[in-house]
Order: sequence, then C-alpha cells, then structure tokens
Amino acid sequence: MRVLVAQSGGPTAVINASLSGVIREAKSLKWEIYGGLYGIEGILQSKITPLEMDDKKLERLEKTPGAYLGSCRYNLPDPPHEVYDKLFEIFKSNKIDAFLYIGGNDSMQTVWKIYKEIERRKSHVKVGGIPKTIDNDLVGTDHCPGFPSAAKFLNVVASEFVIDSNVYSKPSICVIETMGRDSGWLAASLKLAEEIVKGLKVITYIPERPVSEEAILDEVYALKDNPLLVSVSEGIKDKDGQYFYTVGSRDVFGNVKLGGSGEKVAGIIEKIGKVKFVNPSFLQRAASHIVSSIDVKEAIMVGFDGVRALQFHNGFFASIERINNDRYESQTKIIPIEEVAGKIRTMPLDFNDEMIKSYVGPLIDELPAYAWR
Amino acid sequence: MRVLVAQSGGPTAVINASLSGVIREAKSLKWEIYGGLYGIEGILQSKITPLEMDDKKLERLEKTPGAYLGSCRYNLPDPPHEVYDKLFEIFKSNKIDAFLYIGGNDSMQTVWKIYKEIERRKSHVKVGGIPKTIDNDLVGTDHCPGFPSAAKFLNVVASEFVIDSNVYSKPSICVIETMGRDSGWLAASLKLAEEIVKGLKVITYIPERPVSEEAILDEVYALKDNPLLVSVSEGIKDKDGQYFYTVGSRDVFGNVKLGGSGEKVAGIIEKIGKVKFVNPSFLQRAASHIVSSIDVKEAIMVGFDGVRALQFHNGFFASIERINNDRYESQTKIIPIEEVAGKIRTMPLDFNDEMIKSYVGPLIDELPAYAWR
Repeated sequence: MRVLVAQSGGPTAVINASLSGVIREAKSLKWEIYGGLYGIEGILQSKITPLEMDDKKLERLEKTPGAYLGSCRYNLPDPPHEVYDKLFEIFKSNKIDAFLYIGGNDSMQTVWKIYKEIERRKSHVKVGGIPKTIDNDLVGTDHCPGFPSAAKFLNVVASEFVIDSNVYSKPSICVIETMGRDSGWLAASLKLAEEIVKGLKVITYIPERPVSEEAILDEVYALKDNPLLVSVSEGIKDKDGQYFYTVGSRDVFGNVKLGGSGEKVAGIIEKIGKVKFVNPSFLQRAASHIVSSIDVKEAIMVGFDGVRALQFHNGFFASIERINNDRYESQTKIIPIEEVAGKIRTMPLDFNDEMIKSYVGPLIDELPAYAWR
Repeated sequence: MRVLVAQSGGPTAVINASLSGVIREAKSLKWEIYGGLYGIEGILQSKITPLEMDDKKLERLEKTPGAYLGSCRYNLPDPPHEVYDKLFEIFKSNKIDAFLYIGGNDSMQTVWKIYKEIERRKSHVKVGGIPKTIDNDLVGTDHCPGFPSAAKFLNVVASEFVIDSNVYSKPSICVIETMGRDSGWLAASLKLAEEIVKGLKVITYIPERPVSEEAILDEVYALKDNPLLVSVSEGIKDKDGQYFYTVGSRDVFGNVKLGGSGEKVAGIIEKIGKVKFVNPSFLQRAASHIVSSIDVKEAIMVGFDGVRALQFHNGFFASIERINNDRYESQTKIIPIEEVAGKIRTMPLDFNDEMIKSYVGPLIDELPAYAWR
C-alpha cells in the first residue's frame, strides 16, 4: 500500500501534527508514505516525494508551524474534466493506492471531487479528508484541529493586551480583530478571557449577527466602566449582509479578502473613550509556541485514524467526536466526505456566551493565572 | 525602614518580576514595603498601600503582565516646584524612608529630580531607579529588563509568521513592525530569526539609519529570491530626519505617537512581490507567556539589589552588567542616576548584524527548533 499525503489551504499551528499522525500510522502498518508538495497543485506537477522520518524528526514536526509539505489555494474543477486524466495518470505512474488531504473547506471539496472521479473511473485509489482550519467552520465534526490552539493564543494574548492597556488610572477600551471570514467561532471564543482577567467584560462581533454603528456604541457605552475587550471577526456584516469593511480584492476562489473590520470598530468606539487596537493577523494561526496540547493530540489522532480508515472506507472524512465534556474526551469518527464538502458551519444564533465557554473551554489545556491587586 | 515602590511608563512582560524582587528582598531585610498606585501621579494623590504577599502570590506576580501597581505617564516638573512640597509631605505623613521607581527614561528623570530635591531639602529619604523598557534605550546598563523577552516574543512569532507565509509555491515577503520610537534595538533583534528559520534573510530598518523608498526597493529586490523578513521599527526616519510615517498626534510628554511605518514599507515593497504584514503592537511588550527566563531572573535581580542598595547609596540606578557572554552571566551594578537620566541610548551605527546576534542571542533562554524538508 502506498499512501500519498498532502496539505492545503492556510496553515494552522497543528496541521503538521496531523501529518505526523499520518506518517506514524503508515509506518506502523508498514505502508509506504509519499508526500505531495504544494497540495493538489503540486501533485498535478508530479511534485511527489517519499517521506521518511525518524521519531525525533516527527516530534519536531509536531511543533513546526506552517505546512511542512507546502500548500496551495488551487481548487480542482468540477468533474468530469481533463485535469482528472492527468491526476489519475500521476497516481498511476507513482503507484499511489490512496490519497489523504489535510485541509479546510476548499480542500474537502477537492477530496469529494476526486472521490466522484474514483467512482466514475472505477479506480482502485482510495481518498480521505483530514480536517484543519482555525475558522472551525467544517461541518460533521465537533471542532476542527487548529481552532483550539488559535483560540488559546487569542485568549492568552488578548488577556495580556487588556491587562497591559489598563495599567493607567483611566481605562482603555481594547479592540482585537480575529480571523474567521464566514464564521464567528474564533471571535466568540474570546469570551473565555472573562475567566482569565478579573472583572473583564468581552463583547463579541461575529459574521452571523448583523452589526451596526449604533448598536456597537450602545453596547460599549453600557459596559464602559469595566475593563473591556471588544472582539471583532474580520467578516462582520451589516444588516444588509454587506461586509462591514473590506479592502475589496478577492482571493483565487473568489472569496472577498477582508481587512480593517477591527480598525473600523475601534474608530467608532473612539467616540466613547480611549481605544487600543491590535490585529494579531497571521500570528493567530501560526502560533506553534502556544498550542493546546489537546489540539495537538487530536490533530495527530485524526491523521492516525485517517490512515487506518483507508483499510475499510473510501471518500471519507476523519471527524472529531466529543464524547465527554466534563472530563474532556474525544475520538475520531469516520463519516462520508459528501456530508462535509461544500458546506460551511456558521455559529448557531442561539449559541450564547455560556455555551461558547462550555464549548471552547475544555479544548484548551491551560489558561494563565495572574496575580491581582 | 519603610520602602515605597511604584511602577511607571509602558509595562513590560517582566516589570512585575522586578516588583517581586523588591518585595522579596524587603521582606528578607524585615523592612516595611508599601506600594504607590499609578506611579508618581497616584503617589501625589496619596494612593499608597501596604504590600503583603506570600511566596505563592509572588511567584504568580512574576508571571503577570502589565504593571501590578498601575502606571502613569506623568512627569514631575523641574525642581524647585511646589509639587515637591506636596510629595515630601506625603512621604512624611506615610513615614516613607525610601522610594524605588521601576521605569524607563521618563521615570529615571523623575528619580533624578526627586534626588535633587532630597539634597536641596537635606531630607533623610533615599531614592533609586530600577530599569524597565522593551525599547532598551536606557544608558548605563548592558540592556534593560523587558527587552530580552520582547525580543524573544518577536523572534518566535516572526519565525512562525515567515514559515506560515511561505507554504505556497510562490514566496511572500513578510513585513513586521516593531516598537522602538528612538532606538532600533528591537527591530534589529529580529536578525536572530535567521538562526531559527532555514534560509531566511532579515532586513532591518531602524530609527538610527535614515531610510528611503529607493534604498528599500534595492535591498529587498536583491534578496527577493530568499524567504525574506523585513523588520521595521515604528520610529524610522528619512534622510531629513523626518519620521517616515506618523499619525501626527503627540503623547503627554510631547513625544510624537507613531504608527504605520511598517504598513508604509509593506506598501512600497508590493512593487516587488506579494507582501504579508503584521504589527504585533502591544502584544510584544505584554507577552508574559513567552518571557526569557534570563530576563525574569535579571528583572528580579535588579529589584532585589535596588532594595539592598538603599543601605549604602542614594540617587542611584540599578543597572545590569554583562560579565560573561559565552556562558552568559550578569550582575547588578549600582551607578549614579545622574549618569542615566535624560539620556537615550540609540544603537551605535557600527553595530553590525553579527554584533546584534552576539548581543541579543545570549539574553534569550531558548529559541524554537523546527523540522525542515
């Protein structure tokens, strides 16, 4: 059995931990493991190489940011299409029996499209998807590897930012922008900072709930006498569904590239008091120095179980199932890729503050404990 | 003996470690220790409170961001002035025998002014300054507590940022803005990232060296085929000494508030290739989650030795002396505050890349080691 693995989309702090899980389990099954460089785009250029790593390198890989194999933002056209002739020719010439793709929404569509071609061609190749995305917007899984670590990083640095900014006798209102184009999971996760910083109130603005300048001013004014953190998703929209702020350009998938939502909210709030603003930007998805150990473990787990699933399944997705929240426990659940591809999981509008804390809290191994006056 | 301690200026990740050192040594000498809230501004409003902490709280304090006692940006007027009548009355009514001020440039001027008034009034009060500033721009000390941790944070997150940004087959040029209004120590410290990221080239722009659009384009173009990090100090200036970019407002000391230098450089470089930009802003000075243990130890040391120095000295500054660079070792050196106050230590123009690595490297306890393809 020869397995090809590749990574795609924006990296997370633990996407390489999933790669490590894949390599570790392929090794233990005595399967051959090959890496596709630069995702499906590189595979179509035959950028395929054997992967050999000893345990020491695998341990190091699990702490390495970025995507070890490189990544792409290339999306396959809908099948049937001549590009699949090329892809299956490359699979054949490299003796590939199975393909695992570690990625987010766009990558899971790629897995689904390849699976449809496998069926149409009656190919022996097997294909599976392994989740990663800090946005946490894949359906069919309790959460996505990468999200817990990004949420941990954001909560820790936002707490440091709030404490640093409130050392003067006059308070500052702190505004932070988070990633999350279509879903507010990351912005909402900052509610946890209320559990870290004494007296802190956190207001969250997410793409799922329309925002207006008036509502922002009202909400912030009502809480202005507390230490205050305003968490703004990059993708917030007004009541007409228009992005609150955008730089106007589009990425290769036609998605609007966002920027400036947080700065715009900060500017609005300046009418009320002194405002300090930070945008951690790429740092939030790359912060391998402060991952959640639970996230690393689960990222390895879905990589590991993705390899095992190749023995029994095709066209699958290795999702995470939460089986205990009080004493947190999870396991991999293999589901059809069809249930995942092309769908976006936004935050349910009835997901209140307590629910987000109870959802995110157990995914983070440790939050800081500070000294208070 | 009753010692009053206060904190001032922008916090660092280890300014509370210095406070802990002061409290620990005052306790061991069986002296009374009082805290002044919100720096000298709060002390002038009699905001003075006894400080009692057990070892558990002191340990927690050493990991707490911000300034535990609060801070201010208030500068005392030049003596003689009626404000000193008030200050010494407050010292007297609170039975204060000594005052230790933990701060940066402006705070050290305050210490010096108070010392001049002590001499003029022949007061029994003793006064000393304990350094903190991520800018590293105090004279009379090898480096300032707070700088090593800020440099560690910047190098770690910049490395993560660069690796994350270079996962695609086409490279990105990464631009990061650092703090440092008048001195380039922090921006220059990012040269160390070359030791972390395989093949990385780092270009640094610092306030001490004039920059021009043409020179930036030339330098970046020459290195564009490498993974590239451009580190931009917020305070860079053009050949006429004008800030490269500024939002135009001034803080209460009349210092120009800077912003946008990094974004401006990023905009210039876009002529050459794809650019990604981050501004860690306040996060770099507040990052208590990734301090250098050497920095914490030294911050405690200067607090500790500042208390001890009150037995023999007045009008002093507790500086750090580097006594071994190969196997890094340092000690406190007590020097007259007069040698420090009102001076800014910029980076010498002959401080080359190897010198900055040899200067900053030993101050950082540990840098990450990643897996490479």
